[in-house]
Amino acid sequence: VIESLDFGRMLVLDGVINLTERDEFIYHEMLVHVPLFSHPHPSNVLVIGGGDGGTAREVLKHQDIKKVQQVEIDEEVVGVCRSFFPDLCASLDHQKVGLLFMDAVQYMEETEDQFDIILLDSTDPVIEQSEDLFGGAFFRDCLGALTDQGILAAQVGDIHFDTPIVQRVLRNLSQVFPVVNLYLAPVPSYTLLPYAFAFCSKTVLPEACLGISRYHNKLPTRYYNPEIHKAAFALPQQLKEDFRAFS
Amino acid sequence: VIESLDFGRMLVLDGVINLTERDEFIYHEMLVHVPLFSHPHPSNVLVIGGGDGGTAREVLKHQDIKKVQQVEIDEEVVGVCRSFFPDLCASLDHQKVGLLFMDAVQYMEETEDQFDIILLDSTDPVIEQSEDLFGGAFFRDCLGALTDQGILAAQVGDIHFDTPIVQRVLRNLSQVFPVVNLYLAPVPSYTLLPYAFAFCSKTVLPEACLGISRYHNKLPTRYYNPEIHKAAFALPQQLKEDFRAFS
Repeated sequence: VIESLDFGRMLVLDGVINLTERDEFIYHEMLVHVPLFSHPHPSNVLVIGGGDGGTAREVLKHQDIKKVQQVEIDEEVVGVCRSFFPDLCASLDHQKVGLLFMDAVQYMEETEDQFDIILLDSTDPVIEQSEDLFGGAFFRDCLGALTDQGILAAQVGDIHFDTPIVQRVLRNLSQVFPVVNLYLAPVPSYTLLPYAFAFCSKTVLPEACLGISRYHNKLPTRYYNPEIHKAAFALPQQLKEDFRAFS
Repeated sequence: VIESLDFGRMLVLDGVINLTERDEFIYHEMLVHVPLFSHPHPSNVLVIGGGDGGTAREVLKHQDIKKVQQVEIDEEVVGVCRSFFPDLCASLDHQKVGLLFMDAVQYMEETEDQFDIILLDSTDPVIEQSEDLFGGAFFRDCLGALTDQGILAAQVGDIHFDTPIVQRVLRNLSQVFPVVNLYLAPVPSYTLLPYAFAFCSKTVLPEACLGISRYHNKLPTRYYNPEIHKAAFALPQQLKEDFRAFS
């Protein structure tokens, strides 16, 4: 945990910035609200990683959510965050949240639960230890645990700097999910140019549910809104050419 | 002129980064192509500032353009750029470009020419010397020099950091122009969160012309495309609340 001038308090894991006080809201809002507002009636949510609690905090803003199952490999991350980012972690104590400390790869192999939404809030695909979390076998298990209208959203790393790695992750996703779309949001503490997320589903498209009335209700956000939801799927020309299948 | 690890070669004026090799294309493409592709048939373009030539380079990609009048106060900027950014400056020697070294405030008071597009590519409103370039009198002169379907686009500074200054600039613009909309693009060397531009006109709206066939022709860009054009006008929730009149 580091105090920085530009980003406030930061959590650094394995040498990689995981969250900062200044811009964590953009990352968490976009990882969570894009898939949740794309689903007609999300009820059960699975969060892989997310030990800081920021993702659970955003999920819990949707009052229809019944259960948030969270699978985090590292109990120490939660402990450190409870000390240094107590506002974020508070969501982990919510009665709807179940917190399990285990390897998500093993969890996905074994679980028989079904989820409307799966959020991959793990470390970057560049970290060796997390490689299995971006592989075909894990993604197939995720698909198997999704309901018919289910959506998986994942952070996929620094698309401008680690382009070949992100392309491999997207190839793996597209061999499993019929729908795979990239979307972007600025998370300057991760990377200077917009950061990339993948939206994956069996059939549901990103904008399908944006028009229905539930979405006009006021949800307290600082970055996300329905126009940003749509706009996030517009890829700059260079990325569109490099990732033609996912735009 | 500075060589930097993250951004390549940079031009710094009065302590403010004016352009960098790595991200100037985003700034210039978005300052230029958003207004030009919003106009039904732009022909005469006025560039205020822009001594590095990047704005003229993008304007000249539109082959129907007949004349680019450029008014730059500082001949030395062009000299330095000719030495250190020759690729950018090459556009200033194009036969369609007229380069005038004088104060743009005086130029706008005196000119009797009419323009389809005016691009304000000057220094930030935080710089004292450029204050008159963001005031009501100058904007009224700009309006007077625009054709009926004319559009003015301006960079308006760091909307997240200098919010009150940008709000004042937008108030000044909106007292003169019937249409004033904000749009955003990432220019990380200027500011970590997306950078703001203003789109101003008498009647023309930002998306009015995006559907017509001219716009489907291939123009070589790395950032801009029609989807990005639309998406750039989506403001994050916090900005939407702070700048309600311009979203």
